Amino acid sequence: MPQYAIGLDYGTNSCRSLLVDISDGKEIGSFVFDYPSGELGILTDPKDPNVARQNPQDYLDGLEIIIRGAVEEAVSSRPDFSPSEIIGIGIDTTGSTPIPVDETGTPLGLKPEFRDNLAAMVWLWKDHTAHAEAQEITETASQMRPQYLAKCGGIYSSEWWWAKILHLKRTSPEVFDAAHSFVEHCDYIPAVLAGNTDPLSLRRGVCAAGHKAMYSDTWGGLPDKEFLEALDPALAQLRERLFETAVSAGEKAGGLCAEWAQKTGLSEGTAISVGAFDCHMGAVACGVKEGTLTKILGTSTCDITVSSTERELEDIPGLCGIVDGSVLPGHYGIEAGQSAVGDIFLWLVNHLVPDTYGSSAEEKFTNMENAMGRQNPGASGLLALDWNNGNRTILVDSRLSGLLLGQTLHTEAHEIYRAYIEATAFGALTIIKRMEEHGIAIHEVITTGGLAVKNASLMQIYADILGRPLKVASSDQTCALGAALFGATASGQVKLGDVQGQCTNVRGITYQPIPEHQAIYTRLYSLYLELHDSFGTEKTDGRLDHVMKELIEIRESQR
Amino acid sequence: MPQYAIGLDYGTNSCRSLLVDISDGKEIGSFVFDYPSGELGILTDPKDPNVARQNPQDYLDGLEIIIRGAVEEAVSSRPDFSPSEIIGIGIDTTGSTPIPVDETGTPLGLKPEFRDNLAAMVWLWKDHTAHAEAQEITETASQMRPQYLAKCGGIYSSEWWWAKILHLKRTSPEVFDAAHSFVEHCDYIPAVLAGNTDPLSLRRGVCAAGHKAMYSDTWGGLPDKEFLEALDPALAQLRERLFETAVSAGEKAGGLCAEWAQKTGLSEGTAISVGAFDCHMGAVACGVKEGTLTKILGTSTCDITVSSTERELEDIPGLCGIVDGSVLPGHYGIEAGQSAVGDIFLWLVNHLVPDTYGSSAEEKFTNMENAMGRQNPGASGLLALDWNNGNRTILVDSRLSGLLLGQTLHTEAHEIYRAYIEATAFGALTIIKRMEEHGIAIHEVITTGGLAVKNASLMQIYADILGRPLKVASSDQTCALGAALFGATASGQVKLGDVQGQCTNVRGITYQPIPEHQAIYTRLYSLYLELHDSFGTEKTDGRLDHVMKELIEIRESQR
Repeated sequence: MPQYAIGLDYGTNSCRSLLVDISDGKEIGSFVFDYPSGELGILTDPKDPNVARQNPQDYLDGLEIIIRGAVEEAVSSRPDFSPSEIIGIGIDTTGSTPIPVDETGTPLGLKPEFRDNLAAMVWLWKDHTAHAEAQEITETASQMRPQYLAKCGGIYSSEWWWAKILHLKRTSPEVFDAAHSFVEHCDYIPAVLAGNTDPLSLRRGVCAAGHKAMYSDTWGGLPDKEFLEALDPALAQLRERLFETAVSAGEKAGGLCAEWAQKTGLSEGTAISVGAFDCHMGAVACGVKEGTLTKILGTSTCDITVSSTERELEDIPGLCGIVDGSVLPGHYGIEAGQSAVGDIFLWLVNHLVPDTYGSSAEEKFTNMENAMGRQNPGASGLLALDWNNGNRTILVDSRLSGLLLGQTLHTEAHEIYRAYIEATAFGALTIIKRMEEHGIAIHEVITTGGLAVKNASLMQIYADILGRPLKVASSDQTCALGAALFGATASGQVKLGDVQGQCTNVRGITYQPIPEHQAIYTRLYSLYLELHDSFGTEKTDGRLDHVMKELIEIRESQR
Repeated sequence: MPQYAIGLDYGTNSCRSLLVDISDGKEIGSFVFDYPSGELGILTDPKDPNVARQNPQDYLDGLEIIIRGAVEEAVSSRPDFSPSEIIGIGIDTTGSTPIPVDETGTPLGLKPEFRDNLAAMVWLWKDHTAHAEAQEITETASQMRPQYLAKCGGIYSSEWWWAKILHLKRTSPEVFDAAHSFVEHCDYIPAVLAGNTDPLSLRRGVCAAGHKAMYSDTWGGLPDKEFLEALDPALAQLRERLFETAVSAGEKAGGLCAEWAQKTGLSEGTAISVGAFDCHMGAVACGVKEGTLTKILGTSTCDITVSSTERELEDIPGLCGIVDGSVLPGHYGIEAGQSAVGDIFLWLVNHLVPDTYGSSAEEKFTNMENAMGRQNPGASGLLALDWNNGNRTILVDSRLSGLLLGQTLHTEAHEIYRAYIEATAFGALTIIKRMEEHGIAIHEVITTGGLAVKNASLMQIYADILGRPLKVASSDQTCALGAALFGATASGQVKLGDVQGQCTNVRGITYQPIPEHQAIYTRLYSLYLELHDSFGTEKTDGRLDHVMKELIEIRESQR
């Protein structure tokens, strides 16, 4: 009897489903739902570019639509398919994306009294309003609990759980008071499907908890009360209204409840996996293993690799976290990433590329890629930093900004586009070098995401700059595929390793570094590193690390 | 009997005439001729953005057309006007813009055998190909003849006479060998009109010679043979085929020859003034005097002030020169400038502003200025360096490039435009500060040029950043007006001081600094200075002054 699983992938601008035959990974149904709220699904504040929130209603509206859509497509593409053959549902989301909820687990943003309150909405991963609180958490932890900090790269980020909750408490105390608890987006969706959103008993994933909320079994779960008390007594009280344990994806979060079985047409009781972040599940669908780095190249990037728990692992400064079981069982999941990659290109094409390149964004990208193909590396004289949305790894600093250097009176838009592609690749190389300095050898890079599939110019530049062959995962939807694999695993009927082997592969094309390009890029990278260290660290003499911060301060005071 | 004079102003993209009633400065006739060759009159080389040449034929074609055009307009606007009432002709041009000529003074670029040879064309002021030779001249002079260097700011520029000629000799020896002599554009046009282009006897202006060719009466004219020999024996030989003395504008270069009297309809023998650079003559028409800085705000800027020769003057590092009589008799002319101002805005609007701001460049500028008017200073978080075409004053370094810092994912084109306006104003402030540090107090700033007249947003930002009231000269065509005043003076019938008093004035509007803006700009300026010093000087620790140069080297090797 055939077995299927469904993966639900909640991205930044939309959510999608993928219905997979787990015997061979064939994708027989899929559906996408664009979040209707805000700007491409993001609620922003014109006064503060750090704000990025979401409307929880978008998640629920999408949930029904994408499951139904995938099932309908499967039914029409494979007539003998029956929804009852779906053995499990897996869910991945962005993160850290905390949701303030009431005692029943209802997101405050769904309640009439908070509907127009940005603070009561979902705090999307890329919300950077909590930079001051992140710094405070870093300082407090470095004094009181250095072990907490060591496992998340030495610097706590404004993108993460505690910083966001503390900022909410400081700036919108009425919302904080109304919030009985907080739930990560990736834990909320499984809870909804399982029909139990009670914040004290719903199952929490170790991926979010371990990478973003300083959770570890080695110190008894969440950070201790004394530490939280030092940050804010309210956080210490909140600890009791959160959770004691967090488990790996692939564990069962529950069975599909009657209400959602009816809404979606799936069988009641279908296994639902504990949730995890998109890139972690995507890594599994890319075939992540020791020595293999997987890169999801999208609006931002997420880099994931794993290291067997049989071997002692050093702490790695600047990485987003090292968490036992956050990706594969028996392995530490190691996460890094860049705060903006595709987002920088989208900003450029939408705000700074004239119509001589085409009338649509797509046409402009194509024509710019064609034009840049006719130029050698280094021929523009440009060099950029990839910090338009801060630097997640290895500086963990959201109070940085973009830099473009080398313009003449002849510089053209496609040259700037290329400089930004190169900047993001230099950022990616900096992450690999940091891993290797701390004993994580990277022999192979497997990419996935829209840019990996569609942008051959970018992929060749990345291969040249990373100095490693670049492969591309077979699936167009690795995150959703990974979620489906975890959904299947939660049924208890299959093992993750087996379905990973059956359902994942790479494409025929591999991008090989071109030696002459590598030579030029080696020179450019050493200049990139000088700018990186001058503007981003305290380690150079005559350092300029205060420049971007002071400009951001002035910007904030003048808006 | 009424008296008129005609001024001829040769700019970067066009030349124009202005026919002036010298009793009151009324402008009764004018005509513009756009140079037809190349891109907006400039011959470029796609392989090297440093190349900027012109076709001498454009100058001659324009000469006849603009004089005739002004006379025709005058005849129709003032019926009792007669061309015989024109008592003098004055000429200003860009510079240093040397022209290789044969024994008869014919530009090599006019000769059939050189018509397609860029090296035989006119070397426009903004040609930066001679950067290596400029550095060599600086080094040789600092060892052998520091006094030569001290009078032109301590660094010889790639924009200047000897660097260009030496580069020509090195890179196109066949053109150098064919060149019997070299003539500045501003000396060539008077010579043509006077009917004597013999390079050994045509009158040369001290403005070009003193500011760009290291000419000074204090050391006997041009640099001595021993010094030139050290640079290249060919230059020492060339010295004999150049000139012994150079004189101030307002001296008579000759009388209008029969041929050009016939071509233009003016009277044979009409006095022709010795030529000078546009900004020097423009400064006179702005009313330059001690304590008054005049700024011509155009594609580049030129800043001129004067200091009485009765007072000893310190050398001022980084300025373009201090030359006795180059602006007003009895005064040192003091010149500074920025290599690109309007050119940066034109680059931006032509290459990086999407059509959402409008379909024409003009519409885009207007809409960007409206949009920036709604934002406070500093609200964009952006900061730029104004070095897209190098830095003329105070760094005298063409091997620098642009820098833009502070971009987010929300930065818009009009914010970048404003950041570049601010950057050029910070550059302008740096020049004033350098003058004041060396005893040249600036009490008043009078501006002229297209940007001063048309761009109120820019003028307010400049007033806020310079911290001084900004006035605007009455004439729209101050360079041509200044040229006309010198033309009149050359007749011997009037004195320069008198016609300056009669014909120049400022407009009713004065831009006053806004104190709250000044406070923000003071903070931004200190950050600008840090970037300026880090990337442009050797004076900071952990300096980055090699970054732009290395990128330019890579660029050159990869094109």
